[in-house]
Amino acid sequence: MRATVIHGERDVRLEEVPEPRLLAATDAIVRVVAACVCGSDLWPYRGVTPTHEPRRIGHEFVGVVEQLGDEVSTLSVGDFVIAPFYFCDNTCANCRNGVSTSCLHGGWWGADDRNGDFVDGAQGEKVRVPLADGTLVATPGMPDDSLVPSLLTLADVMGTGHHAAVSAGVTAGSTVAVVGDGAVGLCAVLASKRLGASRIVAMSRHADRQAIAREFGATDIVEERGDEGVERIKELFDGIGPDFVLECVGTKESMDQAIRSARPGGMVGYVGVPNGGPELPVRRLFNTNVGVNGGVASVRGYVEELLPEVLSGAINPGRVFDLQLPLSDVAEAYAAMDERRATKVLLRP
Amino acid sequence: MRATVIHGERDVRLEEVPEPRLLAATDAIVRVVAACVCGSDLWPYRGVTPTHEPRRIGHEFVGVVEQLGDEVSTLSVGDFVIAPFYFCDNTCANCRNGVSTSCLHGGWWGADDRNGDFVDGAQGEKVRVPLADGTLVATPGMPDDSLVPSLLTLADVMGTGHHAAVSAGVTAGSTVAVVGDGAVGLCAVLASKRLGASRIVAMSRHADRQAIAREFGATDIVEERGDEGVERIKELFDGIGPDFVLECVGTKESMDQAIRSARPGGMVGYVGVPNGGPELPVRRLFNTNVGVNGGVASVRGYVEELLPEVLSGAINPGRVFDLQLPLSDVAEAYAAMDERRATKVLLRP
Repeated sequence: MRATVIHGERDVRLEEVPEPRLLAATDAIVRVVAACVCGSDLWPYRGVTPTHEPRRIGHEFVGVVEQLGDEVSTLSVGDFVIAPFYFCDNTCANCRNGVSTSCLHGGWWGADDRNGDFVDGAQGEKVRVPLADGTLVATPGMPDDSLVPSLLTLADVMGTGHHAAVSAGVTAGSTVAVVGDGAVGLCAVLASKRLGASRIVAMSRHADRQAIAREFGATDIVEERGDEGVERIKELFDGIGPDFVLECVGTKESMDQAIRSARPGGMVGYVGVPNGGPELPVRRLFNTNVGVNGGVASVRGYVEELLPEVLSGAINPGRVFDLQLPLSDVAEAYAAMDERRATKVLLRP
Repeated sequence: MRATVIHGERDVRLEEVPEPRLLAATDAIVRVVAACVCGSDLWPYRGVTPTHEPRRIGHEFVGVVEQLGDEVSTLSVGDFVIAPFYFCDNTCANCRNGVSTSCLHGGWWGADDRNGDFVDGAQGEKVRVPLADGTLVATPGMPDDSLVPSLLTLADVMGTGHHAAVSAGVTAGSTVAVVGDGAVGLCAVLASKRLGASRIVAMSRHADRQAIAREFGATDIVEERGDEGVERIKELFDGIGPDFVLECVGTKESMDQAIRSARPGGMVGYVGVPNGGPELPVRRLFNTNVGVNGGVASVRGYVEELLPEVLSGAINPGRVFDLQLPLSDVAEAYAAMDERRATKVLLRP
């Protein structure tokens, strides 16, 4: 089969790789219907995190079950399934605590599982899925093709935006600012709206992303950044700032923006993968009682809550995809996101 | 009148200072019945934070109202009152949000108020209290003298321990570890017990403090620190750690201990004044979904909740005082705490 391999800075290639096969009785083989490129894939693509040797890449996919190990009990061949950006048993102590990204038996696409067997990356034609009962969620019946983009967001960006909002503690009637207008930031706006936030500020300088943010529920747009951005946001909320700020980027600047924008006693929900730092300024947090909560999003646990709203069309997070390409154009998909010609690219094998 | 002045490292003196008088219509003059020395007073005492010129010190007191400005409406001369470790109007947007330590019109004992007028420190015979209606809470009638230590803890340590537990989100049935066996740490144990925690680990190496921790509700004691301490605590909770860890010290070591001890998805509630740092390790927090929440404790807002339990004897946080001295022995009070001969010293003018 064909799958995407990253060789180094700005060098991703679709290559012939071994067909996956069932290795454990809890495995499934899934034929990928759609995958995509994540903002975090751009760190190795840009060389910010080095690629020491060629490796498989991609961690978001939906697909159809082709084969099942003998012990898989909740799925059938032919099921359309959503895979989170990691695999997990969904039964261990950490999974039960809602932190399936810390599953005691889980792992990551494109790396070895706990048995030492390689697990495929998602930007390919097929994937061997360990712990299939825990990892995969089947839709009721085969969804209409038009729903595929929104279903795919449940693998990562919609669940991650939701995690930012849940980690911050967004509640009905609360006020929110979102730092970051990428796919996750836009989904964090949508998640805040779902949770009943009464006012949602999207920080964005791009007209097309502002439009989606408005569609997703943003009531205000702030284009300024840094000191000016903090001042503008505080102004919008009695001079003290919103209850919650959702950090969806992962740079030092974006985290500072988030921490400084929250009102005293407010909470920052953060999901941007910290890019080599920074450390958090504890003294500022202490003085203002601003808390920080979040991390690598346990999206598996959110699928059951969000899926019905995607299927009914109540939410349409798939709007964050502004480019669809065949998998054979994966190099162009990375380039388009790297050069900011696209917010998020969907790939069809 | 006499009040405590810090001149420099290990140099506190009781000195004759001007008698306070009403300066604003919202002021009260309170005669101090009891004050005490705080762990955070030891930073300047030890020279860790420098004292550039002699200044008044002390921020915890209870007393009796002697004079009231014309606009004070909720208090009467002769009332026994509890003062938080700061003054606040208790009506501004931040106070309404429960963050009275960020009061838009408040300030600190031993420093200037917003009118530029000096406000007395608490380790003295009398204190001018700005914003008296917001700051002070009167007890119903004159409390028995035996209740004075517990009432005094509502000025800081009991409210601060409670803030750690509330900031972490301690709920009925949850599991807690407390880092720090000073007065605040012990009160954090008591606060966790009040809030219904099912298991509470106190980290302590001192038999006398362990005994109070047990009395306050600790179910387990861990004497180890560092890697060993983390391991011991994780062992006690299925190998993954407790839901909540309360950091009540303020050093890099104690914060690391707290962050590393919490289970994935857990929360650190912290109230130890960060002593010149450290910054928080965001990557570890991100990977484990451990959140950090807390800061300078808004104890004013907790007095109404905790006071009835102190008056009824349901809780007895005054047990943290293991030495009582006359105010004239204030230098000995600091020395006893500095040399760890006392956990917390109560001073009677």
